[in-house]
Amino acid sequence: MDAFEFHNPVKIVFGRGKVNSTGKHINGMAKKVLLCFGKSSAKKSGTLEKVTSSLNEHGISWIELSDIKSNPLLSKVREGIELAETNSIEAVVAVGGGSVMDTAKAVAAGTVIKRGDIWDCFLGKTEIASALPVITVPTLAASGSEMNGFMVITDEENNLKLAAGSPHVYPAVSILDPELTFSVPADYTAYGGVDAICHLLEPFFNGSWPDTPVQDRITYGLIRAIADATERCLANPYDYNARANLMWGATLALNGLTKTGVGEHFFPVHMIEHSISAIFDVPHGAGLAALLPGWMEWFASSGHDSRVAELGVNIYGIAKEGNAAENAWSTVKQFANWLTSIGCPNDLKSLSITEKDHAAISENAMVQAGIWGIQEYSVDVVMDILARCQRWD
Amino acid sequence: MDAFEFHNPVKIVFGRGKVNSTGKHINGMAKKVLLCFGKSSAKKSGTLEKVTSSLNEHGISWIELSDIKSNPLLSKVREGIELAETNSIEAVVAVGGGSVMDTAKAVAAGTVIKRGDIWDCFLGKTEIASALPVITVPTLAASGSEMNGFMVITDEENNLKLAAGSPHVYPAVSILDPELTFSVPADYTAYGGVDAICHLLEPFFNGSWPDTPVQDRITYGLIRAIADATERCLANPYDYNARANLMWGATLALNGLTKTGVGEHFFPVHMIEHSISAIFDVPHGAGLAALLPGWMEWFASSGHDSRVAELGVNIYGIAKEGNAAENAWSTVKQFANWLTSIGCPNDLKSLSITEKDHAAISENAMVQAGIWGIQEYSVDVVMDILARCQRWD
Repeated sequence: MDAFEFHNPVKIVFGRGKVNSTGKHINGMAKKVLLCFGKSSAKKSGTLEKVTSSLNEHGISWIELSDIKSNPLLSKVREGIELAETNSIEAVVAVGGGSVMDTAKAVAAGTVIKRGDIWDCFLGKTEIASALPVITVPTLAASGSEMNGFMVITDEENNLKLAAGSPHVYPAVSILDPELTFSVPADYTAYGGVDAICHLLEPFFNGSWPDTPVQDRITYGLIRAIADATERCLANPYDYNARANLMWGATLALNGLTKTGVGEHFFPVHMIEHSISAIFDVPHGAGLAALLPGWMEWFASSGHDSRVAELGVNIYGIAKEGNAAENAWSTVKQFANWLTSIGCPNDLKSLSITEKDHAAISENAMVQAGIWGIQEYSVDVVMDILARCQRWD
Repeated sequence: MDAFEFHNPVKIVFGRGKVNSTGKHINGMAKKVLLCFGKSSAKKSGTLEKVTSSLNEHGISWIELSDIKSNPLLSKVREGIELAETNSIEAVVAVGGGSVMDTAKAVAAGTVIKRGDIWDCFLGKTEIASALPVITVPTLAASGSEMNGFMVITDEENNLKLAAGSPHVYPAVSILDPELTFSVPADYTAYGGVDAICHLLEPFFNGSWPDTPVQDRITYGLIRAIADATERCLANPYDYNARANLMWGATLALNGLTKTGVGEHFFPVHMIEHSISAIFDVPHGAGLAALLPGWMEWFASSGHDSRVAELGVNIYGIAKEGNAAENAWSTVKQFANWLTSIGCPNDLKSLSITEKDHAAISENAMVQAGIWGIQEYSVDVVMDILARCQRWD
């Protein structure tokens, strides 16, 4: 096990109807907040009204930052920063999915930035030194943003979707109310499950495997629990416990726990997907689903079939004794079939992406690889991966 | 899944040689600390010197509270409080196992108590309102005290071993250096593993099972990982990764994670064990090992065989299809045999406790049950459990 530091100070308030306690948990922290939300669903579902009622109840006023879109934009972050500065905002509240939470974090950090620009933090030119308190009320089980210090924003002018992280943007409080996800449609429910599972798979595969059964076994357990909960949610969107397990599972999938001590690692599938959704604006989870089987096949065939096989042994009960290459292949196939079974794409073709697009995607990915100093993923490697992801059958 | 709040702000610094960074992590928090340690092992192993060198390096002075014994005493806590008050101590540092960490927490809370006495917090008469910062350097993988807000202290005058909890006694920082556990002898290594597994089993069995596969699957994974790591440590005490997995596994076993949302629950096996070690001064983990098979058998036969069977299906691979009562029995037998295989007792006889002692143990347990308002465990129930625990073969 490698050395690590783990410090996750987010307070989680979990349960049915907890959305109505939002104001109570902000009370004492801020009297005036920036309220961030998306284009329509938080309004239509009534969630936004529950939050504002609760803010009213506790005498907390708000300014709205609305119409935040999926694959959220830097221009919207800048709009939020200006609103926050002009109105002497004391905290930022996110009501929505990962896009809204990530926008709220970027605004919270950007508002108090002393020198330079918030985008410099994404470009790796400067570090986030502080941030306004962030409070999240997630309406989608997927990103894990509600319990971590990461955010992903798209610079639309340069087609660049980048991630940044800082301990300062950990939410102070996250209100996890599974009922808020009852209205999530089937496709986004499934994409959310895949996003969460991908958050577990990336450190599992891309660490250096330094003998970490504790982390590995938590990973297996969470993958199984999230996969099962996703299926239950699709079968019955109003199954509270299914929604609750998907929500808590997705939160734990990227709260840092399963990343501890597994060695330096990054998120190549996320990197390539960010390029895809920066260019084609596809839903993040759909992009991940389209990449995962092909990427896993590439990864197994690059000398790592025993690691892929290990996953299959532990989550699918594949016989340990078998040949590693065969077991790896069987693992990838089962995973690809599972994606189909929950209505997700499992190749790029399903997203109407063609071979002609691969060069642009690879080139875009290289910008990210450059910022993070990732050398393993050259243009040729990404082109090879994309070729394997193009068609799965 | 039941509603819950989860907020664990402990900073974990994990890895080989991290003990030498103790001073660095206290720096800025305190210039003068109370340094708590046990009777001999922290000194003999050189750990204490590493800590004091690191304190010196950062200009942090200390006053010593030494000779803290297993099943730590209220009188020692009072001694620490007086030392801390007299010397204007700003933080409390624990170098040792659960006993030392729990003593440090009680001193940290007792020093700043405004009204009444620290023992009143254990008796449920008052709540802890604040505490000095606590820093722990565990030398034993077992209690999980390094990442939770619990402490267990024995009032030796009244033979009463009681637990108390407060968010104020969460350690600010815990330095987890697996090398510090190389010198733990085989018996205490095994007791530690059993303690950690018992911390996982109690919420798993004693919650209300409100459909929590996320928590259950983390529990299964941690039990397997801790059991395997315990065996590896016994086979080679200097196996760093084995010690690291045992240490991190034991920490996660009682950091609140697996307790989230499983319903109101308490720790009856711990309750009965506290009575045993209050009266007979046996090592805590040995007492738990002596109780667990008999308690599990009693629990299964009290209408809960399906829950016990579920454990066996998931940690021992017992066939799901079988009869629940038979599967439960098979689970208990496998667990009892495993205890023997790692050199632990699996009944009270092995601790030289006889039937004649049962009444005193039950009576003592009733005091704890009274403080916590537990009605399910009457004298008759505890006597029944003790009878089943007396002899296992």
